[in-house]
Amino acid sequence: MDDLLNKVLEGDRIAAARMITMIENDEEAKNELMSKIYPYTGHAYIIGVTGSPGAGKSTLTDKLVSEIRHHGLTVAIIAIDPTSPFSGGAILGDRIRMQSHYLDPGVFIRSMGTRGSLGGLSRATNEAVKVMDALGKDIVIIETVGVGQSEFDIMHIANTTLVVLTPGAGDAIQTIKAGIMEIADIFVVNKSDLEGSDRVKMEVEAMLDMKKTNGWRPPVVQTASISGNGFQELWHKILDHKNYLESSGHLVNQRKKRLEEEAREILEHEVKKHVWQAVEASGEWEQIVESLYNKEMDPYTAAKKLIAAHFNIL
Amino acid sequence: MDDLLNKVLEGDRIAAARMITMIENDEEAKNELMSKIYPYTGHAYIIGVTGSPGAGKSTLTDKLVSEIRHHGLTVAIIAIDPTSPFSGGAILGDRIRMQSHYLDPGVFIRSMGTRGSLGGLSRATNEAVKVMDALGKDIVIIETVGVGQSEFDIMHIANTTLVVLTPGAGDAIQTIKAGIMEIADIFVVNKSDLEGSDRVKMEVEAMLDMKKTNGWRPPVVQTASISGNGFQELWHKILDHKNYLESSGHLVNQRKKRLEEEAREILEHEVKKHVWQAVEASGEWEQIVESLYNKEMDPYTAAKKLIAAHFNIL
Repeated sequence: MDDLLNKVLEGDRIAAARMITMIENDEEAKNELMSKIYPYTGHAYIIGVTGSPGAGKSTLTDKLVSEIRHHGLTVAIIAIDPTSPFSGGAILGDRIRMQSHYLDPGVFIRSMGTRGSLGGLSRATNEAVKVMDALGKDIVIIETVGVGQSEFDIMHIANTTLVVLTPGAGDAIQTIKAGIMEIADIFVVNKSDLEGSDRVKMEVEAMLDMKKTNGWRPPVVQTASISGNGFQELWHKILDHKNYLESSGHLVNQRKKRLEEEAREILEHEVKKHVWQAVEASGEWEQIVESLYNKEMDPYTAAKKLIAAHFNIL
Repeated sequence: MDDLLNKVLEGDRIAAARMITMIENDEEAKNELMSKIYPYTGHAYIIGVTGSPGAGKSTLTDKLVSEIRHHGLTVAIIAIDPTSPFSGGAILGDRIRMQSHYLDPGVFIRSMGTRGSLGGLSRATNEAVKVMDALGKDIVIIETVGVGQSEFDIMHIANTTLVVLTPGAGDAIQTIKAGIMEIADIFVVNKSDLEGSDRVKMEVEAMLDMKKTNGWRPPVVQTASISGNGFQELWHKILDHKNYLESSGHLVNQRKKRLEEEAREILEHEVKKHVWQAVEASGEWEQIVESLYNKEMDPYTAAKKLIAAHFNIL
C-alpha cells in the first residue's frame, strides 16, 4: 500500500488510476490510503465546469485544457459520467473528443460514473481530486453531467466554478429557475458563434445587476470552441478569480469550510456504516419491514426502537 | 396535536397545510405527528412528473388534473420549487397557471422549496405525500423542478413516473445521457403540436426496443397542453400501469421496498442528529477543523476518533 502511495507521489499515472478505482469501489483499504495521502494535498487549484446537458461542456473543457497546457501547467480532469442501465456502462461519447490530450503526459483524464447513487459521488469526487493533487497536477478540472446533485456538489469542491450557458431560447432563464445560477464564479456563454450569444450575455449581466455582489462580480465570458475564441480571456478570468480568493483571504476560509464539510461527510458515512452493520447483525430488519407493511408499527417508532437497542451516545 | 391530526383526517385543508409547514421546518413535534398519521395512509396513488426545465411540466400537470377531476377523483399536487438566492424566494411563475384549480375543493396544491439542501427533500416530500394521503386525496401528483436530486428521488416515491420530453433538438438523447430515462414508467412527448414530436416518439421507441423490458414496456404518449389532446390517453396509460402493478404483485413489493427505504432514511437521520448533538456538546469540533487545516490530523482519523469518543454500538 505504501508502494502504491509512493508511486502516486512520484507521478505514476497507473498508480493514480488504481487508487481512484479503489475509491470508486469504496474498498476497505481506501480510508487508510486517503489518510496517508492527506499531508501531500492542498496544492492543486480546482475548477468546476457545470451547465445544462448539451451546453458543450466537454468541448469547452478540452479547449480550456489546451489553453492551460499552453502556459506550461499540468492538468487532471474528472469527467462525471452518467451510467445508464440502458447501455450498461458510462456513455463516453463526448469523452472521445478529449483524445487530443490522451498522449500528453501533462494531462490526466478520468471518468467517474454516477451509477444512480449520487449520494456518494461528492465524497468519491473529493477523494479523486486529492489523488490528482498528490500526483502533482497543478490544475484539476471537474466536469459534471449537468443534471442531478453533482451540479450542487461541485461548488463545494471547486475553487472556481464555471457555469456554461448557450444561446438557446430562454436558456439563461431556465438556468436561474433551476437554481444553479448562484453557484457561478464565472459565466461562460459557449457557442458564441451562434446567434443570440450577445443577448444571453446581456440577460446574465442584467440579472447580476439585480444581485448584491460582495467583492466578486462573476464576469460573463463568450467562447466558441470551434474557433477557439475567448479561451485566453476565460483563463485570465479564472486567474483573476484565483487572485481575488487569495488576496481577500477567501481561499483560506473556503479551504477550512471544505475541510469541515469533508470531515462531516466522512464522519456521517462511517456512523451510517456502523449503524447498518449493527442492525444487520441483529437480524431484526426484515421483521420490522414486515410489521411496517402490516401497520403494526410506524417507521418513526421503528427508528427510535433500533437506536435505543443498538447505540449508546456516550 | 391530536386536534390537528383529526382535522387533517376530516379533510381540513388548512390543517394539512400547517402540518406540511411543520414538515418543511423539521419541527420537533413533527415525528410524533407523522407517527400518528401513519395508520391512515397507504390509499392514495402517487404520480411523479419529471423532465428537463422548460418541458412544460406545470401546464401538463394542470391539464392532467382536469382530466382526473373529470373522472370524479380528488387530487393533491406537490410542486417542488427551486429557491433562488437571487430572488430570495421560490420562483412561482409557473404555478400561477394552476390557478384554474385553486377554487376547486377537490384539488389541494402545495409548493415545497428545495432551499439548496436537496438532501432532505426526499424525506420531506414523502411526509407531505402522507399528509395528503391522510387528507383523503385519491391521487397525489409530485412535480419536480427537473434538475437536481429530486428527479432521482421521485422514482422512490411515485407509483407511476412520467418523464416529459419535448420536440427539441436532441432532447431525447440528452435525457438518456443524463441518466433519467430509466426511471420512466410512461414517456410523455409534450408540445406535440410542435414539429418533431413524431421523431422524438420514434427515437424513444427505438431506444426501448434495445432495452429488455420485464412485463411493462413504457408507452410513449403525445400530448398538447394547449389543445388538450392526448390527456385522455395519458390518464388511461396511467391506469394501465396501475393495473399492471396491482395484478403482477409489483405494487406490494414496491410498497414494502419504499417502507424499508423510508425507515432506513429516518433511522439514519435520527442517528446523525444524535451524533452531531454529541459532537457539538463536546465543543471539540472547531479544534478538529483547525488541526485538519494545519495538517496535524486528517479527516479520516478525525472521524475515527470522534466515533470512538462519542458513540457506542451496544
